[in-house]
Amino acid sequence: MKKKFKKVNAAILIIGNEILSGRTKDKNTSFISEWLNNKCGINVEEVRIIPDKQKKIIFNIKKLSKEFNYVFTTGGIGPTHDDITSYSIAKAFNLKYEFHKKAYQILEKYYGKQRFNDGRKKMAKMPRGSKLILNPSSAAPGFVVKNVLVFPGVPSILNSMIENSKKYLIKGSKVNSKTINLSTVESSISKELEIIQKRYKKFVEIGSYPFFRLGKVGVSIVSRSHSSDQLNKVNRELKRIANIKKIKVLNL
Amino acid sequence: MKKKFKKVNAAILIIGNEILSGRTKDKNTSFISEWLNNKCGINVEEVRIIPDKQKKIIFNIKKLSKEFNYVFTTGGIGPTHDDITSYSIAKAFNLKYEFHKKAYQILEKYYGKQRFNDGRKKMAKMPRGSKLILNPSSAAPGFVVKNVLVFPGVPSILNSMIENSKKYLIKGSKVNSKTINLSTVESSISKELEIIQKRYKKFVEIGSYPFFRLGKVGVSIVSRSHSSDQLNKVNRELKRIANIKKIKVLNL
Repeated sequence: MKKKFKKVNAAILIIGNEILSGRTKDKNTSFISEWLNNKCGINVEEVRIIPDKQKKIIFNIKKLSKEFNYVFTTGGIGPTHDDITSYSIAKAFNLKYEFHKKAYQILEKYYGKQRFNDGRKKMAKMPRGSKLILNPSSAAPGFVVKNVLVFPGVPSILNSMIENSKKYLIKGSKVNSKTINLSTVESSISKELEIIQKRYKKFVEIGSYPFFRLGKVGVSIVSRSHSSDQLNKVNRELKRIANIKKIKVLNL
Repeated sequence: MKKKFKKVNAAILIIGNEILSGRTKDKNTSFISEWLNNKCGINVEEVRIIPDKQKKIIFNIKKLSKEFNYVFTTGGIGPTHDDITSYSIAKAFNLKYEFHKKAYQILEKYYGKQRFNDGRKKMAKMPRGSKLILNPSSAAPGFVVKNVLVFPGVPSILNSMIENSKKYLIKGSKVNSKTINLSTVESSISKELEIIQKRYKKFVEIGSYPFFRLGKVGVSIVSRSHSSDQLNKVNRELKRIANIKKIKVLNL
């Protein structure tokens, strides 16, 4: 009897000129992707990085929200003129862009009535019907609208919020992975890898990644699968090949 | 008299399950983007990260090569079964996938006839009509076909090759940038920033990025423009605002 695995996928949409220009290195992709897989069994299948341009945001929100179970956006929900993510998402879904009552209260309390200026008020504006993702670092909440989850771009703030989005997500089956590091070069094992991949193509995805670290040259063979059984079988085959070809398995 | 600026743009297509899963952090986007702007005056306007799946590669190559002046791909040109970039690009453009004579010679010489096995030979296969991007680190060349430039995913190898792609590129006008770091929070200056951005909207793009580093909280105001004159004007305005609002300019 075959076990059934529930596949849930997501895309990440990173909004920000500073990432595209190379000025800021994106740290959110790897964090979100690992969290989603480990905690929710959701697999990230595409990432796009786009500029802070309304047309681009609208186009990509429409497109990705149709194609994937969830879309996670980062960036563009602060108080300045270049923060246009919330407004653009409202436009993408033809929803009113308005003050979210609860978000307004949270921010007013955080800043105090006197210091709650227009820039800060802007952070309480969202597409109508949004549900809040609370922010324990700096108060300004993210939100969920349809299947789109909206986060700020600053990694430390995003990281502190992500657990608060879990309740909005339908969980899937986690993709497990195993890595074997071999003291060889890719082209010495490519034939054998291909044979194993073909044999297990239905359940396991085998990736091969050369590395150069700590003065060692080698190849990391990473197998990914919903099924731990299948993964163990592939690993045994890989070890057998290494043994036959007298390739050392490295502990890194 | 207005100076004319030549705008040339590019997209980056990162091909690799290891980046999507979060296992490997992407280092190529910021490197390529900065190199393209500084050395070639080419502006990266979109990045996509996709899995090693033929359909996905074909779709995105067709789409991005139509939409942008250049497409830079990274990943998937090694000797193993999961390296399907070259084959997929040939398919995308309806070109024959075949041995590139020069690439074959380079690799045969590098490995020696005896050790030039099938995996290694695979790295000499490319879409018909490709021009080589030579690889001083590990011999296996990248290539250019139509407006698509194809690089390996390992950052150190990519970095060593990129200068060799320069001769294939039409140069544009560099986007210059200036950064002022202010000891304040975004919401205290958002109104003034918006006014300045509106005044210079034709030539300058102003971004506002909060930061927390070395124990200091502040905002980096990054202005980007083809025109240095306009950039200097914006910077003078920003300093004037800081002065009026008694905000310290930080030297970081």
